[in-house]
Amino acid sequence: MKDILTVMAQRKSVRHFQPEEVPNELLDTALHAAMAAPSAKNQQVWEFIVLRDRALLDALAAQLPYAKMLAQASVAVAVCGDTSKNSGEAALNWVADCAAAAENFLLAIEALGLGAVWTAAFPYADRTGAVCRTLNLPAHIVPLCVIPVGYPAKDEPVKDKWRPEKIHYNQW
Amino acid sequence: MKDILTVMAQRKSVRHFQPEEVPNELLDTALHAAMAAPSAKNQQVWEFIVLRDRALLDALAAQLPYAKMLAQASVAVAVCGDTSKNSGEAALNWVADCAAAAENFLLAIEALGLGAVWTAAFPYADRTGAVCRTLNLPAHIVPLCVIPVGYPAKDEPVKDKWRPEKIHYNQW
Repeated sequence: MKDILTVMAQRKSVRHFQPEEVPNELLDTALHAAMAAPSAKNQQVWEFIVLRDRALLDALAAQLPYAKMLAQASVAVAVCGDTSKNSGEAALNWVADCAAAAENFLLAIEALGLGAVWTAAFPYADRTGAVCRTLNLPAHIVPLCVIPVGYPAKDEPVKDKWRPEKIHYNQW
Repeated sequence: MKDILTVMAQRKSVRHFQPEEVPNELLDTALHAAMAAPSAKNQQVWEFIVLRDRALLDALAAQLPYAKMLAQASVAVAVCGDTSKNSGEAALNWVADCAAAAENFLLAIEALGLGAVWTAAFPYADRTGAVCRTLNLPAHIVPLCVIPVGYPAKDEPVKDKWRPEKIHYNQW
């Protein structure tokens, strides 16, 4: 298996998939990685919906403008936050927790020779509403993103996003 | 170098550091990893403040209740979001972007044999205010977290956070 720096450098959004199904054990490996992420107060407020039902995948594809590839994916994972664990100023803690878990998931998917793409639900009310209704989420569970997963259909380009001007020293 | 799944499983919060300084090239390697994260609309709205100035590190340690270890760290990185790139519903996109970048940074730090801990600034107004003032951030730059970095002073325990009950199938 590739070392982590190589995997992070090579990870890219994969939007075209082969029809071959993703084995459950590979998906579980990536979900293990997701749950290894750090979280505020170690509350681990993430929840994961694994979607293999064709009708549900197609229903989300029809409603999410940037997730049309769900119609070609045999599986997807919705990364959701449990908003019941925090309130007041801390209410938004779930966003960073779930984002860190989603990034771990994407890195594991890349490392396993699979491909995936983060399609945003939050912070868009129409998209989170569509996911909540389609997946029957209770009111305290909010989807951050829906991630289609599959074997890449082609080589996808890797972006070099190194921009040293984004590094500041000591003060702005 | 260890494979990525091992690094993700072994990554832990490190809050006690040896006095030895972290070389710039290792920090740049971790910042490379941070910038390889995915971001909404590929806007890469992250900005990184590398803190080596002792007075600034101590000033943050004095103001941030869960970042007292900054007083022992020789370097820290504040991961910040540029909020000028999005508005309306998309205004909060920076949080997930910066969280994914912060997680890549933490994983690279672990892979390099260093240690670090995510200490939250956002969503707490007093903490983000303290960081903004101390680091002289312009009004459109908001800190997500401040990450002290160093060589671990001791073996820190690794948590097993695998909880299969957090996985749901097709619908809640």
